[in-house]
Amino acid sequence: MKAGIIGASGYSGESLVKLLLAHPRVELAAVTSRSRAGRPLAEVIPSLRGRDRGLRFVDSDAAALAAGDIDLFFLALPHGAAAEYARVLLPAGKRVIDLSADFRIADPAAYERYYGPHPAPELLPHARFVLPELTPPAWKTDAAVRLVAAPGCYPTSILVPLVPLLRDGVVAREHIVVNSCSGVSGAGRKLDETYLYAERAESVKAYGLVKHRHLAEIEEQLALLGTGGEPVAIQFNPHFAPMRRGIATTITVPAKNPSIDALRAAWEKACAGRPFVQILPSGETPDTAHVAGTNRVDMSAVPDPRTGNFVITSALDNIMKGASGQAVQIMNLWLGFDETAGLV
Amino acid sequence: MKAGIIGASGYSGESLVKLLLAHPRVELAAVTSRSRAGRPLAEVIPSLRGRDRGLRFVDSDAAALAAGDIDLFFLALPHGAAAEYARVLLPAGKRVIDLSADFRIADPAAYERYYGPHPAPELLPHARFVLPELTPPAWKTDAAVRLVAAPGCYPTSILVPLVPLLRDGVVAREHIVVNSCSGVSGAGRKLDETYLYAERAESVKAYGLVKHRHLAEIEEQLALLGTGGEPVAIQFNPHFAPMRRGIATTITVPAKNPSIDALRAAWEKACAGRPFVQILPSGETPDTAHVAGTNRVDMSAVPDPRTGNFVITSALDNIMKGASGQAVQIMNLWLGFDETAGLV
Amino acid sequence: MKAGIIGASGYSGESLVKLLLAHPRVELAAVTSRSRAGRPLAEVIPSLRGRDRGLRFVDSDAAALAAGDIDLFFLALPHGAAAEYARVLLPAGKRVIDLSADFRIADPAAYERYYGPHPAPELLPHARFVLPELTPPAWKTDAAVRLVAAPGCYPTSILVPLVPLLRDGVVAREHIVVNSCSGVSGAGRKLDETYLYAERAESVKAYGLVKHRHLAEIEEQLALLGTGGEPVAIQFNPHFAPMRRGIATTITVPAKNPSIDALRAAWEKACAGRPFVQILPSGETPDTAHVAGTNRVDMSAVPDPRTGNFVITSALDNIMKGASGQAVQIMNLWLGFDETAGLV
Amino acid sequence: MKAGIIGASGYSGESLVKLLLAHPRVELAAVTSRSRAGRPLAEVIPSLRGRDRGLRFVDSDAAALAAGDIDLFFLALPHGAAAEYARVLLPAGKRVIDLSADFRIADPAAYERYYGPHPAPELLPHARFVLPELTPPAWKTDAAVRLVAAPGCYPTSILVPLVPLLRDGVVAREHIVVNSCSGVSGAGRKLDETYLYAERAESVKAYGLVKHRHLAEIEEQLALLGTGGEPVAIQFNPHFAPMRRGIATTITVPAKNPSIDALRAAWEKACAGRPFVQILPSGETPDTAHVAGTNRVDMSAVPDPRTGNFVITSALDNIMKGASGQAVQIMNLWLGFDETAGLV
Repeated sequence: MKAGIIGASGYSGESLVKLLLAHPRVELAAVTSRSRAGRPLAEVIPSLRGRDRGLRFVDSDAAALAAGDIDLFFLALPHGAAAEYARVLLPAGKRVIDLSADFRIADPAAYERYYGPHPAPELLPHARFVLPELTPPAWKTDAAVRLVAAPGCYPTSILVPLVPLLRDGVVAREHIVVNSCSGVSGAGRKLDETYLYAERAESVKAYGLVKHRHLAEIEEQLALLGTGGEPVAIQFNPHFAPMRRGIATTITVPAKNPSIDALRAAWEKACAGRPFVQILPSGETPDTAHVAGTNRVDMSAVPDPRTGNFVITSALDNIMKGASGQAVQIMNLWLGFDETAGLV
Repeated sequence: MKAGIIGASGYSGESLVKLLLAHPRVELAAVTSRSRAGRPLAEVIPSLRGRDRGLRFVDSDAAALAAGDIDLFFLALPHGAAAEYARVLLPAGKRVIDLSADFRIADPAAYERYYGPHPAPELLPHARFVLPELTPPAWKTDAAVRLVAAPGCYPTSILVPLVPLLRDGVVAREHIVVNSCSGVSGAGRKLDETYLYAERAESVKAYGLVKHRHLAEIEEQLALLGTGGEPVAIQFNPHFAPMRRGIATTITVPAKNPSIDALRAAWEKACAGRPFVQILPSGETPDTAHVAGTNRVDMSAVPDPRTGNFVITSALDNIMKGASGQAVQIMNLWLGFDETAGLV
Repeated sequence: MKAGIIGASGYSGESLVKLLLAHPRVELAAVTSRSRAGRPLAEVIPSLRGRDRGLRFVDSDAAALAAGDIDLFFLALPHGAAAEYARVLLPAGKRVIDLSADFRIADPAAYERYYGPHPAPELLPHARFVLPELTPPAWKTDAAVRLVAAPGCYPTSILVPLVPLLRDGVVAREHIVVNSCSGVSGAGRKLDETYLYAERAESVKAYGLVKHRHLAEIEEQLALLGTGGEPVAIQFNPHFAPMRRGIATTITVPAKNPSIDALRAAWEKACAGRPFVQILPSGETPDTAHVAGTNRVDMSAVPDPRTGNFVITSALDNIMKGASGQAVQIMNLWLGFDETAGLV
Repeated sequence: MKAGIIGASGYSGESLVKLLLAHPRVELAAVTSRSRAGRPLAEVIPSLRGRDRGLRFVDSDAAALAAGDIDLFFLALPHGAAAEYARVLLPAGKRVIDLSADFRIADPAAYERYYGPHPAPELLPHARFVLPELTPPAWKTDAAVRLVAAPGCYPTSILVPLVPLLRDGVVAREHIVVNSCSGVSGAGRKLDETYLYAERAESVKAYGLVKHRHLAEIEEQLALLGTGGEPVAIQFNPHFAPMRRGIATTITVPAKNPSIDALRAAWEKACAGRPFVQILPSGETPDTAHVAGTNRVDMSAVPDPRTGNFVITSALDNIMKGASGQAVQIMNLWLGFDETAGLV
């Protein structure tokens, strides 16, 4: 199997390069970049020094890539740009795993509310949002699926713990409050004063309140996977924290069944055999430092008899399980490899 | 006026030393420490080099201090230890400002639930919890008040924005969810693996869920100041974030009156003329880095028509407005100085 | 006395605004900015909320400023731009304290090697480099001096400990090796990938080796103040360290007189009565965290009988003693105020 | 092959557990800990959740381990304690790779100067210091070698770039000045105020000047490998920097042959085919962030015609190439595996 990466200038793209270079079942055959074509990978990504296998960036010509012998492409591009490539690669029979938001949202109206008009609605029938721990496995063999949209970082940290509890009626779907803290790499390599070291050090700060774009994806999936279609509106409060990587999410949700045993049963049913979810022992809380560099979601819960809520906490590495690692996990499942290949 | 500080080994105590050394109206006459008696201040607190005015730590003998000519003492001690000093200093006619939890909670039963039996219930009639922005000003001239309990860091970040909204009926008292991120100095100088640099860097982690001791103080004050005594039970989710100083608090609360104008009116009424509260312009959110080193609370709010909630954010410096700065502010008000003396 | 600040968009300019707003002897009468004219200070500099005294940025028209009633201007501008203002303000009789490099170097040829052709050589006779702890005090009353060039951050950390030792013959002038670590604010608010949080966290990295521009100023002053004009060529190795503020400098220099007593005597002679230099007790080393927010240089030394060297360490806050604080100290001395006014 | 780890409570021990669990040629058969015997690995080392293969800590009884079927032991213990295990394991025919200082220094007098009397001088004939990039390869098949002492973190960052230059006469052996910045994990999990987050954040600070214990090992190896036995005395200035991991080293050394080509030739000769050393292109400097998590040393050099020195910079991950990764690299070479097995 040959894989290619289109757009590897961001943190997720770089991480994807590393994962695929070390992957036992896939050959990384091309990494594209318009501005860097011809340069060795390690010259641009210094952490790859000595392990880039002599690869160089190639030009990002979609038609040429479509005509070549690469089987599967990862799109590590901004939204909008990803759809442009998908439009050329899908008709050529290529499989595509898209790390952007372009195909995460099934409902074009919801997409438009947060991102503007959908750039390629005609491809939506061939696209599928896949969160491996939650999406029913039929997608793996569904011939209609030619593009898989990998979930966003915040949504993964929220959906993995919350969907099983909604699905099994352990928690209510009203009054759900989600607070998340993200490492600064979540903003990518954006050249904006906001992301300078001297601005973000010693700083925790909420941003994107009541309008963060990930809301579209989170609420669509909560309804599709958790409530049988009943709409769910959550309060989602994202924050920047002074660290490079990691998302820590804390969910407060009213219990319908206040028993911690019921909660754990729902989680264990959902996570049985899943290699990348860890339910923590009672009394422990997830820590972004403990999942750094892994493809794992750690999660735990505590009931509060005073308020009738559960407080649920999760942690993941936004660049790994929140982006590149999850994309590789999706590839592993799609191509029939071991789910953990290249990920531990 | 002569002031003394009992216990200055922690971060708040050190900050208090600096504030009082530079205070225009008060002479710092004694800083006590059992183990460091005789050593120059700057030898123990290196940031004071060249500005400790030759002061040395003195022994912490309560009886001797009670017999001396110092008018007002700050207690920067662990809970329990503070009450021991109060028991000797109050009968000697000294004023006391206590930074510990010993006298923050008026209801001894509530105290006991979180801290164990109250160490000096007989002093409670002479003690008063004072959050300068909220506590009615009569305390300043109430002869019964001999000890003022300065609020905790988390409570300050929550009460300042929330009490005016409860009091004016802008928000409901159910389904209140509070998430806070604290800098690691919030744990003091505790020698525990948890607080090592290599453990906390790159780490955001919830802790103390459903049982943090500050709940006692927060909920008592919400009821006393905000709801006319009606009990309020909040979900309080504290986290450590990888920074030295600062608390960022995000409160989700259902709106009774969903108008942002009503919210701002309640805040402006409560904060009119208060030098240490800043209501941010619409669209901005507080940042711990912007309040570092100040005695300020920055706060803002945004309504969410989708959920019917307000999302309220605040930030303060846990060592300043959360401890030492607030204690000096209390002293300024109590002694009739300008509220901002020594604080800007 | 009225003071103005020209250019306050960088970290040093912001710090200068804060220092002058709180200064007991000077009225901050104008802060200029072409792009921000009309906006309140605190809107642009959020840490000033509630303490900007209602000041707004004004336009940076040099002629208008020259015609106004402000007595002294601080130039917090890039090199080159500073000279343009000096050229207008000096003929109008204004005093100028320049935080840029434009007038730090007396020898125009040396300036040109590092910065290109000097932008205003005709003003050099009216300009003087002043490091308050080292420059002989005659500058304060020299009528020819109309502009004072405040030293750079690295040079201050090097010159303060090293000049007295060269001057008194305690150390050699060959084989001097200086390593410095700077906080990222030293790069200003430059929008460059290099300074993004996700790039600088967990990163120590040398830069500017063998060609850093501060070499011109360091070596000129070492010769002028330390060796009676004999040239000194040092190895200067600057590094970025993952912190916001601070410079830690470590100097290795062969001892001519290996006695630590001789070294301390030279330091004590040079620093007697200087409020902003601290010689640390034997066995202690300076720490950037201990000088953060102060105008201090902490320094210490240890002899190595094995190598015949002294190892000298110093620390300062690059934004304070390395820029804005030092500029205020210079103003205090120039205008005859107490040297520490507004600085403790 | 079965391997065991004795003492895994520190950061290097934990890292070693991860490397061996994922190693393709070795079975991690035992991880010992007196105080944690019986507990699952992942309970103590949370980053291992889901990948500890069900292993539990076992008791650290040296005699029992000597009698068992494990072929090779890693000692991740404090100095002194390591020798106690070596004394039992070597006579039982076990191979030992020691991460402590106990057997790094061939000269017992040099050991004693820095550490006190040697704990097991009778084992020195069976021990060998091995820095894979520099130590002549005969050690791999020398039957007398039963214990390999893995180099320290600072020494590796210094010896790898410097030894080839001394050996080939490119640089002088006098006036060598080495400055290093280490991440705080270099101090291990020591419970000391010095290592608290709130103390080390925003702090760069020199420590251990003129007496750091690694000097013994650095200078012995510089003489043995670099100068044919001629003694070398360096100035070694270690610093703490506010990061978890990484060492950045900057070496100033007078050039004997000032040609950068001669320097690069010496490096290329020494590093030809070495998978874990990268010589950076001219103009680039190593960055601790770029080697984090790798077993690599990045290095570069720049000549200074003004001073006649070379400035040489290197970076490595103190926990990987500075400890656990290097230990695995040594094992790979000793047991005839591919040098990179389990390390990329």
